[in-house]
Amino acid sequence: MDIYGDTKSGNCLKVKWVCDHLALRYRWVAIDIMTGQSRTAEFLKLNPAGQVPVLVFDDGRTLAQSNAIIRYLARDSDLIPRDPFDAAKMDEWLFWEQYSHEPYIAVCRFQMVYLGKAASERDPDRVKRGDAALQRMEHRLAETRFLVGAAFSLADVALLAYTRVAHEGGFDLEAFPALRRWIGDAEKRLGL
Amino acid sequence: MDIYGDTKSGNCLKVKWVCDHLALRYRWVAIDIMTGQSRTAEFLKLNPAGQVPVLVFDDGRTLAQSNAIIRYLARDSDLIPRDPFDAAKMDEWLFWEQYSHEPYIAVCRFQMVYLGKAASERDPDRVKRGDAALQRMEHRLAETRFLVGAAFSLADVALLAYTRVAHEGGFDLEAFPALRRWIGDAEKRLGL
Repeated sequence: MDIYGDTKSGNCLKVKWVCDHLALRYRWVAIDIMTGQSRTAEFLKLNPAGQVPVLVFDDGRTLAQSNAIIRYLARDSDLIPRDPFDAAKMDEWLFWEQYSHEPYIAVCRFQMVYLGKAASERDPDRVKRGDAALQRMEHRLAETRFLVGAAFSLADVALLAYTRVAHEGGFDLEAFPALRRWIGDAEKRLGL
Repeated sequence: MDIYGDTKSGNCLKVKWVCDHLALRYRWVAIDIMTGQSRTAEFLKLNPAGQVPVLVFDDGRTLAQSNAIIRYLARDSDLIPRDPFDAAKMDEWLFWEQYSHEPYIAVCRFQMVYLGKAASERDPDRVKRGDAALQRMEHRLAETRFLVGAAFSLADVALLAYTRVAHEGGFDLEAFPALRRWIGDAEKRLGL
């Protein structure tokens, strides 16, 4: 299978990490989102949403949305809890990541690192919501080792992608000791 | 089990529809988001994200995020395809709904219906992205009966919630015949 991705994107790194962790074979097809390579007619045939990552199977079928991709790739692994309720809590974090974390943390980082904005130029509402997301994770991770509980899961993979680089988006992790402890633990699990 | 929800919210209706469709027993606990009932200290204990819907089991455990809830409730039903790839395509639509549809269609509708904004007062970027989301669904539904294929799934339940009321957010469905056909088909499946 081919993974069309850009290593600048945490959403793409999630997929790479899961493949590497599970020792799945894949070919990485580098797409540069900065030069519009995810908006060409050819790419839009793979994903009409014009977003990376996209998984392309050898028979031509495609799968988009980072969290849907990792859920598929990890479907028979320990990265998805066997208990249906624990798996549902993992899904709760995956959906929360895309709705309440990525649009704030990842977007601020993108604007600062790739568009050259200063921290002071960030949208204050986005900063506030990003801080609230980190606060929520801190609250949880002060209680449990990983997000769903004792076991490392896709919830940790998905949230790690942008949380470990939140400082590049102007977010200060100094006030979040549990979050910093968790980043180290999760990175170790993924061999990062 | 109890469902804390507000029928003004399509995210809450998804959960109600799935329960009714699968004949699951539940108690509906009405939360009025307009008067801050999802921001009280008591409610934040159920969901620190301060969002409805929340599922509360009889033993006190909680589950949030509409798409995680319906995925859990429907886990052994025909609403989730048995084929792993089809299930992954369903997940692709579920994540896309929360990232590329709900923030535009649902938010415009909320601003117009509940905050009294005029269509002309909507954020132009939000309108453009909402139109792009509807266009993408039209493109797909011109090819297949339901979003994943021939079979009705949670992808249809989740996308129906705000698409069927998109006009209340100032979006015109006249140019989208396949979308209107699909809305009728999906409503019929849910007995709406």
